Amino acid sequence: MIKAIDLNSDLGESFGQWKMGNDAEMLGIVSSANVACGFHAGDPVGILQTLKSAKENQVVIGAHVSYPDLVGFGRRNMDIASHELTADVIYQIGALQGLALAAGTSVRYVKPHGALYNTIANDERQALAVIEGILVIDPNLALVGLAGSNILRLAQEKGLKTIAEAFADRAYTAAGELVSRREAGAVLHDANLVAQRMLQLVTKGGVDSIDGKFTPIKADSICVHGDSPGALDMAKQVKKVLQQAGITIQSFIHA
Amino acid sequence: MIKAIDLNSDLGESFGQWKMGNDAEMLGIVSSANVACGFHAGDPVGILQTLKSAKENQVVIGAHVSYPDLVGFGRRNMDIASHELTADVIYQIGALQGLALAAGTSVRYVKPHGALYNTIANDERQALAVIEGILVIDPNLALVGLAGSNILRLAQEKGLKTIAEAFADRAYTAAGELVSRREAGAVLHDANLVAQRMLQLVTKGGVDSIDGKFTPIKADSICVHGDSPGALDMAKQVKKVLQQAGITIQSFIHA
Amino acid sequence: MIKAIDLNSDLGESFGQWKMGNDAEMLGIVSSANVACGFHAGDPVGILQTLKSAKENQVVIGAHVSYPDLVGFGRRNMDIASHELTADVIYQIGALQGLALAAGTSVRYVKPHGALYNTIANDERQALAVIEGILVIDPNLALVGLAGSNILRLAQEKGLKTIAEAFADRAYTAAGELVSRREAGAVLHDANLVAQRMLQLVTKGGVDSIDGKFTPIKADSICVHGDSPGALDMAKQVKKVLQQAGITIQSFIHA
Amino acid sequence: MIKAIDLNSDLGESFGQWKMGNDAEMLGIVSSANVACGFHAGDPVGILQTLKSAKENQVVIGAHVSYPDLVGFGRRNMDIASHELTADVIYQIGALQGLALAAGTSVRYVKPHGALYNTIANDERQALAVIEGILVIDPNLALVGLAGSNILRLAQEKGLKTIAEAFADRAYTAAGELVSRREAGAVLHDANLVAQRMLQLVTKGGVDSIDGKFTPIKADSICVHGDSPGALDMAKQVKKVLQQAGITIQSFIHA
Repeated sequence: MIKAIDLNSDLGESFGQWKMGNDAEMLGIVSSANVACGFHAGDPVGILQTLKSAKENQVVIGAHVSYPDLVGFGRRNMDIASHELTADVIYQIGALQGLALAAGTSVRYVKPHGALYNTIANDERQALAVIEGILVIDPNLALVGLAGSNILRLAQEKGLKTIAEAFADRAYTAAGELVSRREAGAVLHDANLVAQRMLQLVTKGGVDSIDGKFTPIKADSICVHGDSPGALDMAKQVKKVLQQAGITIQSFIHA
Repeated sequence: MIKAIDLNSDLGESFGQWKMGNDAEMLGIVSSANVACGFHAGDPVGILQTLKSAKENQVVIGAHVSYPDLVGFGRRNMDIASHELTADVIYQIGALQGLALAAGTSVRYVKPHGALYNTIANDERQALAVIEGILVIDPNLALVGLAGSNILRLAQEKGLKTIAEAFADRAYTAAGELVSRREAGAVLHDANLVAQRMLQLVTKGGVDSIDGKFTPIKADSICVHGDSPGALDMAKQVKKVLQQAGITIQSFIHA
Repeated sequence: MIKAIDLNSDLGESFGQWKMGNDAEMLGIVSSANVACGFHAGDPVGILQTLKSAKENQVVIGAHVSYPDLVGFGRRNMDIASHELTADVIYQIGALQGLALAAGTSVRYVKPHGALYNTIANDERQALAVIEGILVIDPNLALVGLAGSNILRLAQEKGLKTIAEAFADRAYTAAGELVSRREAGAVLHDANLVAQRMLQLVTKGGVDSIDGKFTPIKADSICVHGDSPGALDMAKQVKKVLQQAGITIQSFIHA
Repeated sequence: MIKAIDLNSDLGESFGQWKMGNDAEMLGIVSSANVACGFHAGDPVGILQTLKSAKENQVVIGAHVSYPDLVGFGRRNMDIASHELTADVIYQIGALQGLALAAGTSVRYVKPHGALYNTIANDERQALAVIEGILVIDPNLALVGLAGSNILRLAQEKGLKTIAEAFADRAYTAAGELVSRREAGAVLHDANLVAQRMLQLVTKGGVDSIDGKFTPIKADSICVHGDSPGALDMAKQVKKVLQQAGITIQSFIHA
């Protein structure tokens, strides 16, 4: 039986005068922080503050790399050339590494954001462009991807460590895929239900799919959100239920 | 007598479909490349290409950090808060370090660009913010500043190595300051004259000021341009005249 | 005795996924909306929504033009050339006019934002550049400026209608200028006090300065904020107290 | 027989310090100018200058609207929501109208740029979003689209005037579609050949396809380029050959 699991969250997503999320509180809950790098969110001074807070909380830091699309928050698919995507990934990781160094910590993994995350789960060309970017800047960086998706296999073939991710508040199909947000029941709102599902995920190796069948999901990390009071409560509940069951919340990467 | 001098130039200043300068040719002339970091110019894929070419030419790389002002090319003064400027400097150096790592090389110095360069020559608050940014990301990075300006002293006090810079194509006042571009004669266009002045700078430790008096200028590096055929010819001429006089063109930083 | 006063507020300041202010509620309070044009805040889809809501509420629309500085929210002084500033002002007014047309309404005035607002109160060069931009796109647009500031006189000389503005939550010096935000007591937080001061402004033609002396301020419009629950309550209180005293809240521009 | 045809070109595509194209010369050749609106290229001050020059040359002005993608020059497909695209189109047309007004002229048509142009030739959702944007800002604006493409029919159904466009330097398939740039022979480089083909287009109503068969193409306007000396010569040659055959170069829109 698994005795530990990682909790990750998207942080550093404020931009200038616009605030998003509650980084200070989330950094007391999660073991890993996916920190925005300026392409979908995050300005240098805000990112630096989040990194300092992550350091204080001994939270492991990942680069939340994105398509260059601030106004679209990186949520719009973009048909970007491979060499452009590779360079964009390197630039973002480098910028975050610099800020992390200034905060007395370092970047340990990469989690693509939004539309890029979804695209590379299936699009091999863009997946390879992201992997290439990671390899040339630091092959010791792990890659976070959707549990069961093709990119994890691709990344492993290329020599990267991978972290399979499950989403706490999302329903899964019987095939182990995320139910599309466009369908009813795709997003779960009941904190207790979500926490119990995550306990099931860790202890049983899967969750009940939207069809009611048990679906195996092999996950190393659970993504939780903190962008609303309800989301924050859900994250706390997930952590609490897991810890009460004797499960340690920790990154598999040594910070 | 000085037997060596550094030649530096501003490179990596294309942006997307917009091309600027002739990086390939300039990297065959200079010993140091001030590479744009994306805030006044430079996109990741173009910067990466310039860095690879710099690596091939064994040219030492510096981060050409700027105010965030793409449309203004970093040439407009901006009243930026100190902590914002510090974080912007770190972000840019980090991004360039990442791309340099991917190109098999590294960033060795920092040269502020345009309005930021001019401002910190005199504005102690902004100067200290830039110095702080360099110190927290890598105290081994040298800082390039205007020969004779206050920022060099400030940076040294804070423990940074400094590189005093002279401008090949600019007239100097009797006080050793640059003649303002708004005044007649501020910019020199005769390649032979410019080359002879730079020889004088290296061998005599100064140049004739716009008033005709010899003005001492203690410079470690000479800035040349490559953004027009005339500028390129001037850079070549400066190098040729210096080399014919037995002066080695090299960075004082070991690449 | 004045029987009417305009209430204005800065709106349309969300950007992509980042929300700011409560436009829906503020549009039920104010008579004039200073709508962001995309340079310091506002994306097209969000601006359009605010304009449609303003139209429904019969609120008069102004272009809240800014320096191009999204990450700095237009709050940082920028040494921009006059012809650049003029063109930036035209571009922003035009963009907002287009969206206003699509919303079935129109732009009736211009209020410079943030650092630009403060700068042109005193800097004649930039003031004239803004005025020039307004004149060439539509000389019937009024200009909102700080009550008592030089730009109002300049704009009138050039043939523009002007709207003198007072700030509900700011302290004034005995000379009728705003107390700098860096000084204690510059910003007022007591909604009742603020509302009484605004009643004094409208009925007595001035307010008590920070030194306790009555200071004449000739204002056509009062700026209120809605970016926090407290600010919203203050705006409501100002309106309530004014209306209870028989003062009509309306723009002097016929919508 | 057709006695007149429109020549159009993409202009106003410089950005800040980066120059692109030769607007001054092209405005002496073409009858219509597709002017960048700031989303793929063009800054306010540069756009204004191009508009003033267009006015002097009595060239009809169109808004060259784009996806928001400066670094990608609007050449990357983007999966943008319909309401976002509609608002983006309105914003860009409005901004250009404002600058055109300041230049003493007006915007008369809309030509989507780059990836947006290609996408809406087939993607009905995005096509309708663009058409909607035009309709709500000014239903008298004509829409330029690829000759034979679906968007022209859609726009006409919605009440817009349309302008069918052919490309001077592109090969066509026997089906009347553009040969993909990825295929050999897709782009033509011989100015005389291109000019003769355009004469054939105007006088015979079609061109020889890449397979050698005559392909009917019903075009109201021919797109020529000016971004290189060769392109400029080709544009001149096309105009010369058409005029020598007695064909008038003019927009079908009365400027």
